[in-house]
Amino acid sequence: MKIQAPRGMRDFTPALLRKRNYVIDILKQQFTHYGFLPIETPAMELLSSLTGKYGDEGDQLMFKVLNSRIHEQKDAAAIQAALLTLATSGKDSTLITERALRYDLTVPFARFVASHQHELQFPFRRYQIQPVWRADRPQKGRYREFWQCDIDSIGAKSLLNECEVLQLCDAVFERLKLPVTLYINHRQFLNGLAEAFNISHRFNEFITLLDALDKSSISQLESEITALGLRSEQVKYIEQLQFEMSINDSLPFNNATLERARAELQQVISNVNPQWITLQWMPVLARGLHYYTGCIFEAKPQSGVLQNSILGGGRYDNLGALFGLHELSGVGLSFGLDRICDVLEDLQLYPTTELQISTSRVLFTHFTEAQQWYALNLARNFRQHGIACEVYAETGRKIGKQFDFAQKLGIPWVCVIGEDELQSGLLTVKSMADGVQTQLTPDALMHKLQNEYGSF
Amino acid sequence: MKIQAPRGMRDFTPALLRKRNYVIDILKQQFTHYGFLPIETPAMELLSSLTGKYGDEGDQLMFKVLNSRIHEQKDAAAIQAALLTLATSGKDSTLITERALRYDLTVPFARFVASHQHELQFPFRRYQIQPVWRADRPQKGRYREFWQCDIDSIGAKSLLNECEVLQLCDAVFERLKLPVTLYINHRQFLNGLAEAFNISHRFNEFITLLDALDKSSISQLESEITALGLRSEQVKYIEQLQFEMSINDSLPFNNATLERARAELQQVISNVNPQWITLQWMPVLARGLHYYTGCIFEAKPQSGVLQNSILGGGRYDNLGALFGLHELSGVGLSFGLDRICDVLEDLQLYPTTELQISTSRVLFTHFTEAQQWYALNLARNFRQHGIACEVYAETGRKIGKQFDFAQKLGIPWVCVIGEDELQSGLLTVKSMADGVQTQLTPDALMHKLQNEYGSF
Repeated sequence: MKIQAPRGMRDFTPALLRKRNYVIDILKQQFTHYGFLPIETPAMELLSSLTGKYGDEGDQLMFKVLNSRIHEQKDAAAIQAALLTLATSGKDSTLITERALRYDLTVPFARFVASHQHELQFPFRRYQIQPVWRADRPQKGRYREFWQCDIDSIGAKSLLNECEVLQLCDAVFERLKLPVTLYINHRQFLNGLAEAFNISHRFNEFITLLDALDKSSISQLESEITALGLRSEQVKYIEQLQFEMSINDSLPFNNATLERARAELQQVISNVNPQWITLQWMPVLARGLHYYTGCIFEAKPQSGVLQNSILGGGRYDNLGALFGLHELSGVGLSFGLDRICDVLEDLQLYPTTELQISTSRVLFTHFTEAQQWYALNLARNFRQHGIACEVYAETGRKIGKQFDFAQKLGIPWVCVIGEDELQSGLLTVKSMADGVQTQLTPDALMHKLQNEYGSF
Repeated sequence: MKIQAPRGMRDFTPALLRKRNYVIDILKQQFTHYGFLPIETPAMELLSSLTGKYGDEGDQLMFKVLNSRIHEQKDAAAIQAALLTLATSGKDSTLITERALRYDLTVPFARFVASHQHELQFPFRRYQIQPVWRADRPQKGRYREFWQCDIDSIGAKSLLNECEVLQLCDAVFERLKLPVTLYINHRQFLNGLAEAFNISHRFNEFITLLDALDKSSISQLESEITALGLRSEQVKYIEQLQFEMSINDSLPFNNATLERARAELQQVISNVNPQWITLQWMPVLARGLHYYTGCIFEAKPQSGVLQNSILGGGRYDNLGALFGLHELSGVGLSFGLDRICDVLEDLQLYPTTELQISTSRVLFTHFTEAQQWYALNLARNFRQHGIACEVYAETGRKIGKQFDFAQKLGIPWVCVIGEDELQSGLLTVKSMADGVQTQLTPDALMHKLQNEYGSF
C-alpha cells in the first residue's frame, strides 16, 4: 500500500515545523511592525481569474480541479466532446474544470483588491503567507507545494514604500542572522539602456538576454546578442554592468530615462541605511517579463551552496488592471519560505537549543492509576498558571521509557510521582540537562518554571 | 469580468482574520499547554489514500485534481476510454486524476503516522489546523473550504487522555467566554443497549436511528423503529434516555457491556472536574458510523440561533489500520473553527476593543518629502524597539485623510510631523480615543507606547 504524500509535496513533522515557524514568526513580527495586515484567499480560484496571467508555461503547470458530478450534467454530448479535446490536444473546457489551485499569491491578491476595494483603506498594506501549487518536475529545493510570504503596499507612489520594504528585509535577515546581498535595479534603467542601444522595439528579448546573464557568460550568449544587433561597445558595456558599480558612477551611455531611473535609485539607496544586509545596485538585474515598472529587488545568501534567489519583488503600476482596477501603483515583495529554510539548514543558522521539538516545560511521570490522577490535577494547575506541561499519557510504563520520552522531545524537566511523593506532597524533580535531582513542593516547582520560562 | 472567489469559498480580510486568529491563538495556546505538537500535511493526498474512507458520499464530494499533460501520455486510446467512462458514469481513473484535496484531517493524520512511525515518539500528541475541501452545496454556515482544528493523542489506552482533552475543551471555551454543553457517551454503551434489545446484528441501523433522534421525534421515526422491531418498552426507554440522566442512575436494562461502558464514563466524568463547560452524559449520542470504539464527545453552544455541533471526537482503536498500522488506540477531537467563529459573532462574544483591524500603535503623518524621510527614521527606531507603527504611505495627502486612515484601522495614536516638529524636535501626538493632544520628545513617546502596549 502506498502511504506517501504525493510526489513533490511534504509532510511537516513537529521537528520540521518548529524550524519553519521560527522563520514565519520573524517574518510576521516584522510585517506587523511595518503595518502590513494579514489576508487569506481560498486555495482555489476560478480558472477564468488565473488563465493567461502566467504565460503558457503557467497555464500548463497549474493544478486544475475536476468539476464534480460531470456525468450528471445535462449536455452529455458536449462533455464527451470536451473530454475528447482534452485527451487529444490538452485543452480543457469549463465543462471539465472551472477551478485551479493558486499558482502564486500576486494574482489572487489583485483579485482580492478588486473584490474588496470598497472595504479596504488605501494605501493598503497586506501580508499573505500561504502555500501555492505548481505541477513542476520536483527536484532538490523545488516542490510542487511551497509557501510564499508576500507583502504588498498598494495605492501609493511614494518611494517611502520601497525604502520601508527594504528596511523590513534588513530587519528580517538580521533576526535570522542570515548574511544576504540584496540587489536593486530599476525597470526604467533597462528601458533607458534599450533606448540608448536603439533596441526599445525589442525590449522583451533584451530583458530575456539580461536574465540569461545570471547563468551564462556573454560569450555563451553570442547568438542572442547577434540577433539583437548589439554593437561591440554596447556588449562591452553590458559586461561592465555585471560587476560592482556605485549608483553615483558616471555612465558612458546616457539619456533622460536612464537619469530618472538613477535619481530614484539614489533616493531609495540613500534613505534605506541598511544595518545588516548588503544593498547592491545590479544594473543588469531584470526580474523577467513581470509587471514591474520601477525599482526591482532580488536577494541571495552571501555564502553556502544554495545560491538561488530567496526573495524578489518590485514596484508595479498596473497590477490591478488584471481585474479592471486602474491607478493602483504598489510595491510588492515575496519571501521564498522553503528556500530560506533550506539555506538556514545548510548554513546551520537555526538556534538549535531553542528549537527543541516540544515546548512542554515538565513531564509528570507515574506508575499507577492513582498517581496518574494525582499528576492530572497537578498538570491542570500548572497549565492554568500558563505553564505548558505533560502527564505521560499511558499508565504503568517503565520509568526509563518515560524519561526517554522527555529526552527525545527535549522536555527540560521530569517530575517523578511515586508512592513517596503522594505521601509527602513533595515532588522529585530532575533536570534533563545535568541530571541533578531536587525535592520541591508543587508551588515551588511552578514558580521555578514561571521564572525560568515565563508563562503564557 | 468575474472577480469573485469560487462559490462556497471565502476571502479573509484583515478584519475577519483578526477574529479568526483570536480563536486560533486560544486553541494553539491550549494545545501547547497540553503537550500537543503541530504537524502539517499537504493539501493533496493520493486518491488511493482517500478513496473509500468516507463512504460513497465522501467519494462524490471530494475535489479531485486533474492530472497535468494528459494528452502527452502514451496510451491515448486508454485515456480516451477513461474520459468516456467519466462522462457517462462519473467513474474516474488514475489516467485522469491521481490526487484529491484533503477531505478531513483524520485520514491524512493516519497516513502521516504510518509514513513517519519511526520518527515519532509514542504516545504521540499532534495538533493540526488546516483547511479541508468538500464539494458540498454551499449554504449558511457550510463552506466548500473550511478549517478543522484537530488534536489526537495516539498510542495510549489510558482514560487520562479522555480526561485531558475534555479539560482542554474546558480551558478553550472558558477563554472564549462561550458557554457550551459537552455531551459525552460511550460506543460500548450503545453496543450494550443493542445487546439488551436483541438487535446487535442490526447495530448500524440502530446507530442511524439514534443519530436521527437529534432532528426528529420518536413518533416521526415510527417506520424505522418498526423496521428494527423494537418493543414498546424499549422505545419508551430510548425516549427517556434523550432527557437528562446522571451517570449514576440505575438502568432498567442491563448487561456486562453496559456496565463496563458506564464504569469508564464514571471514571472520566469524575476526573474532569469542568470549571466552565457543562459536561452532560447523553446516552443516545452516537456520532454516526465512525471509527469510534470508546468514549465519544460532541459540544453545542448553550444559547443563540446556531445550534450545530461545534466539536466532535472520541476514542478509536483501529484508525491506524487504514494504513496497515495495528494496536494504535487514540483519542481525537476536532474543533470546527468556522462554526465557532460564526457562533462568537452571533453571540457577540468577540472582545471588539482588542480586535481593531491594525495592530500599529501610532501613525506618523507628514506633508512634505523631507517630513516623510524624517518620519521614516523615527518609525524605524520605534520598530527596532519593538513597537509596531506606520508612516502614512503616500506623500502630500491632506491631514484629514491621514487621520481618517488611522481612525478606520483603529490605530490609537497619531503623530503629526510638520515644519514646527522638524524644527523643535518635539512631536505632536494625538490620542484617537479622546482627541487630547500633547507634545513629546520621540524617546518619551516611545517609552509611553512601550509601557502601554509592551514591545515584541
